[in-house]
Amino acid sequence: MDKYFIQLALDRMNIEEAIRLTQKVEENVGWIEIGTSLIKEFGMKSVRSFRNAFPEKMLLADMKIIDNARYECDLAFTAGANVVTVMGCGPLITVQLVAETARNANQNFMIDLLNTTEKQQILLRDTFPDAIFCLHTSKDQQERTGDTFRSNDIGWNGRRIAVAGGLNEETLPPIIVQLRPEIFIIGSSITKATNPVAAIRTYQQIIKDNQF
Amino acid sequence: MDKYFIQLALDRMNIEEAIRLTQKVEENVGWIEIGTSLIKEFGMKSVRSFRNAFPEKMLLADMKIIDNARYECDLAFTAGANVVTVMGCGPLITVQLVAETARNANQNFMIDLLNTTEKQQILLRDTFPDAIFCLHTSKDQQERTGDTFRSNDIGWNGRRIAVAGGLNEETLPPIIVQLRPEIFIIGSSITKATNPVAAIRTYQQIIKDNQF
Repeated sequence: MDKYFIQLALDRMNIEEAIRLTQKVEENVGWIEIGTSLIKEFGMKSVRSFRNAFPEKMLLADMKIIDNARYECDLAFTAGANVVTVMGCGPLITVQLVAETARNANQNFMIDLLNTTEKQQILLRDTFPDAIFCLHTSKDQQERTGDTFRSNDIGWNGRRIAVAGGLNEETLPPIIVQLRPEIFIIGSSITKATNPVAAIRTYQQIIKDNQF
Repeated sequence: MDKYFIQLALDRMNIEEAIRLTQKVEENVGWIEIGTSLIKEFGMKSVRSFRNAFPEKMLLADMKIIDNARYECDLAFTAGANVVTVMGCGPLITVQLVAETARNANQNFMIDLLNTTEKQQILLRDTFPDAIFCLHTSKDQQERTGDTFRSNDIGWNGRRIAVAGGLNEETLPPIIVQLRPEIFIIGSSITKATNPVAAIRTYQQIIKDNQF
């Protein structure tokens, strides 16, 4: 695995469309994200279908867990996910339970930092050294306010970092320099591209050009 | 409709079990909540199945929306829900979009106050006069910390109030006196009772005894 990779985020489509799209770009992306909208529309069938279609691929289930951590982790891991997401703005105990459940299952967990305060971020960073931290500008924030990625950089002390939300040619270079992310989460600008592979290559070039 | 009612929360079971359970108590509860765990496990099929089984009943889909508000609201309302939930600890823009989408659909929205600060609660209270506000101690908080319902009462100025999490004979009376809730959300202590109807009647008696 490269020291960084693209996570393909699949949302607002049905399972068949998502699988067909993924088949076109499978070789060019690191992880596949089964988006929250697929999970809420189709349930764990979405994860199982991806596990069947891509037996060897790392699958992230964007569960956005904010309660009932153990149960929801079990749902996702049993269905074939390798990574689950948990909301950093929710109760700390829920993040703790996701962490424990993921560790016991030898799987990964990503803490979505959407709408977290700097204080929450520091606590999460220091409490969960094995988490992946996702700095995230949400769809609603992007679409309604025109915001793209914003980073209030608390200093991540070598933690694994993912970035999501409005990543483009303009916003990416400073993010790369500042945060050295491992995971670049990209959705509609790949899935809605006329040529998804070309879109991925453009991102990869930008990332490569700004590595150090 | 009474001035208060019980919302039956269904979680950690399959759709058939949930429908069977609901059929036993339908007459004794106000709203039916299709829990987050049913939604994430079975998708919108869970909501559609309940709409078919209970054509006249108010259905709340516990979507716990925290992004992609319009899309997720549309999923739930199209499937037959009358009420959706949105997380108050998420971005305000998402709550705003849920409010708009629910109003346009002539449906209701509930703001889940899990892990919100007093400052966030005051802002939400003053921004969304037509919301239902759910004061909520989560499953993970109850099961792991033994916490039951806690209220930091900001003064709700006549807003519609729901309460959820560890409601029992001991915790209910002061909650009723302090918050005058309209909606009492009760899950496992009904669904796991040997006699669910008797369990509901006990709750109704406690509520009645503490009304003013």
